[in-house]
Amino acid sequence: MNNLERNNALVARARRVIPGGMYGHMSVQRMLPAGYPQFFDRAEGARLWDVDGNEYIDFMCAFGPMILGYRHPGVEAAVAQQRSKGDTMTGPSALVVELAERFVDQISHADWAMFAKNGTDATTLCCTLARGATGKRKLLVAKGAYHGAAPWCTPSPKGVIEEDRSHLVHFEYNDVASLTAAAQSAYGDLAGIVVSAFKHDAFVDQALPTREFARAARRISDETGAALILDEVRAGFRLSLDTSWSSLGVEPDLSAWSKAIANGYALAAVLGNDRFRDAATKVYATGSFWMQATPMAAALATISALNELDAPKRLEALGQRLRTGLHSVAQRHGISLRQTGPAAMPMMLFDDDAKLARGNAFCTGMLELGIYMHPWHNMFLSTAHTEGDIDRAIACADEVLANI
Amino acid sequence: MNNLERNNALVARARRVIPGGMYGHMSVQRMLPAGYPQFFDRAEGARLWDVDGNEYIDFMCAFGPMILGYRHPGVEAAVAQQRSKGDTMTGPSALVVELAERFVDQISHADWAMFAKNGTDATTLCCTLARGATGKRKLLVAKGAYHGAAPWCTPSPKGVIEEDRSHLVHFEYNDVASLTAAAQSAYGDLAGIVVSAFKHDAFVDQALPTREFARAARRISDETGAALILDEVRAGFRLSLDTSWSSLGVEPDLSAWSKAIANGYALAAVLGNDRFRDAATKVYATGSFWMQATPMAAALATISALNELDAPKRLEALGQRLRTGLHSVAQRHGISLRQTGPAAMPMMLFDDDAKLARGNAFCTGMLELGIYMHPWHNMFLSTAHTEGDIDRAIACADEVLANI
Repeated sequence: MNNLERNNALVARARRVIPGGMYGHMSVQRMLPAGYPQFFDRAEGARLWDVDGNEYIDFMCAFGPMILGYRHPGVEAAVAQQRSKGDTMTGPSALVVELAERFVDQISHADWAMFAKNGTDATTLCCTLARGATGKRKLLVAKGAYHGAAPWCTPSPKGVIEEDRSHLVHFEYNDVASLTAAAQSAYGDLAGIVVSAFKHDAFVDQALPTREFARAARRISDETGAALILDEVRAGFRLSLDTSWSSLGVEPDLSAWSKAIANGYALAAVLGNDRFRDAATKVYATGSFWMQATPMAAALATISALNELDAPKRLEALGQRLRTGLHSVAQRHGISLRQTGPAAMPMMLFDDDAKLARGNAFCTGMLELGIYMHPWHNMFLSTAHTEGDIDRAIACADEVLANI
Repeated sequence: MNNLERNNALVARARRVIPGGMYGHMSVQRMLPAGYPQFFDRAEGARLWDVDGNEYIDFMCAFGPMILGYRHPGVEAAVAQQRSKGDTMTGPSALVVELAERFVDQISHADWAMFAKNGTDATTLCCTLARGATGKRKLLVAKGAYHGAAPWCTPSPKGVIEEDRSHLVHFEYNDVASLTAAAQSAYGDLAGIVVSAFKHDAFVDQALPTREFARAARRISDETGAALILDEVRAGFRLSLDTSWSSLGVEPDLSAWSKAIANGYALAAVLGNDRFRDAATKVYATGSFWMQATPMAAALATISALNELDAPKRLEALGQRLRTGLHSVAQRHGISLRQTGPAAMPMMLFDDDAKLARGNAFCTGMLELGIYMHPWHNMFLSTAHTEGDIDRAIACADEVLANI
């Protein structure tokens, strides 16, 4: 096991002053097997160093925000330039207009943009806009999907009351009959259908949306006047430079973005079409830091770089290289490894591994060799990952799987 | 009127791609009379420049986040140092532990800290913690108080459904009988009492909490097991280096902080006592950028500087100087000006001015002389404001009031 002496000292201090030592998706104690560091010292490109100086090739990319590599020179330069002028001010800078124009140019369905801080801000605002525009209450949400940590969507029931979810109706992702039944049960009161870019639930195989499912969601929205809300928070810009559903020929009414749009700077966006513009002028949406200028400078630089690099194509190629390599290695060792969902967002689960014994053993083994992977959550690639990084991960997997 | 040519060109562009041209508290069109700029170019100390180069002494301080002055050297240096290492990473840096320790040392009632991005995140999390810890549902909230922009608390009803607020019970701030009646109506089901640091509702006279009211809130919480939740988002660190209620001898169970705690960097905090620690380990609270390291570096530097400067004392002195000066000037011109609430957070309303004709005329007049004030929202002072800035504002008020 890596030396985690400084990490463990910090963990002990953290237990005194932070509930459980850490919370949410950042809690290593609750999320990951022993051996994972809780605290990090620095990051550069695709590399991450923990507080004990252990170096990792990072396949989590900060759980998504990092898409161009940590401390990307172009993004950092844009941020530094804006910071020399102003960041959080008594009003927005001109960048909010430039960035809204950029999103409207980039994303087919978007006629307008609004900005916030958290992915949860964006998904919640989409729901409020759907209800505001339609005057209806029911929201269809896929079972097991993660749309944020507000009371209406948080995965833990602690502190949530029945009324927080009384107008949610659940359906199975990619199941047209289930979606249709949910819509029928909301008959006459349907405000919106909330769908993730793909099925990226934790602990289970991932699934890309079928064309039939996407079209059914669009058709039901059209027939009922409900909003089709696409949650792009996790996948946005990793699968496409338009929405992740553009390849299916299906456009949402509203879409929620965050994570990768500013390469690690705190920003979220809601994009919408003109049918929802009037409601968007009437909903009171705001936050003290929502007009912060530097994340908008970062977003403009990030979106430019993603276009220049044709990032989704690059991430797909890296992901396929990883998937093919891991498949070969696992096969050679006679191990059944399921790699599901889009290659750019790798998800690996072992067969007959309900308690994650194999997944945990594999990931802790990889960690000791300097590869930071996750046993039950989708991973992320960045344009800073090289073919050499991928090949290194495959070689390490070969070594680890030999001993599992 | 100031030249607003560039501003107006941006406003026209914004109308195409941003609903209503701008939203929330940043919308000049909906919030303020003609003449106010919508877009700003830069900020330094207590000064703000709009995109047309008009310079203002800023009495809004970014609606609160700025407390040490824009681009404060100590804060910027701390941020630059952390940025050279890492910001949003796959886990937190050691700064989250240091900052939690710092808050626990600084704020009497706090045994632990959690961090988020928006003030709304913090107030909402306090409510979830109160419900989670008590297993009860009702929340007492003062009529007209602003606690954020989530469906349970946003001031606009658009898109909000009845269930979002079905367990809120309203009372009048500072009215013990009203608070007691609200608690009685929630009998057996009371989860928490949510109170602002003082009554800082928009459009009306402000009011500091009475000792009787604060003690009643504490007593009801003690008797029922409910959480006393202090919303320090707007006032935090401007009135005290402990909670704003520390001078009343009343401690909350949970407190929500944001705005000024990192001098403009996006950060929010929830502080709690040990009675709520267990619930805090069970509520799923998280966001993609909540562990961003640079705002935590900014917060540590900000809290140190606030202590070194004894900021609340300094802000009180500046506020009293402004209040006394404006009072004299108004009196000399025979105008009745009401200045209410804490001097460090100035609020000015004119008598017989229900439609704000005088307030608007005064503020637009001040704006033309380079003083940025607000006609119906509390204002903010910073330690970067000088006596000269205050005297300049008073002299400008003299000139403007002569013509009203």
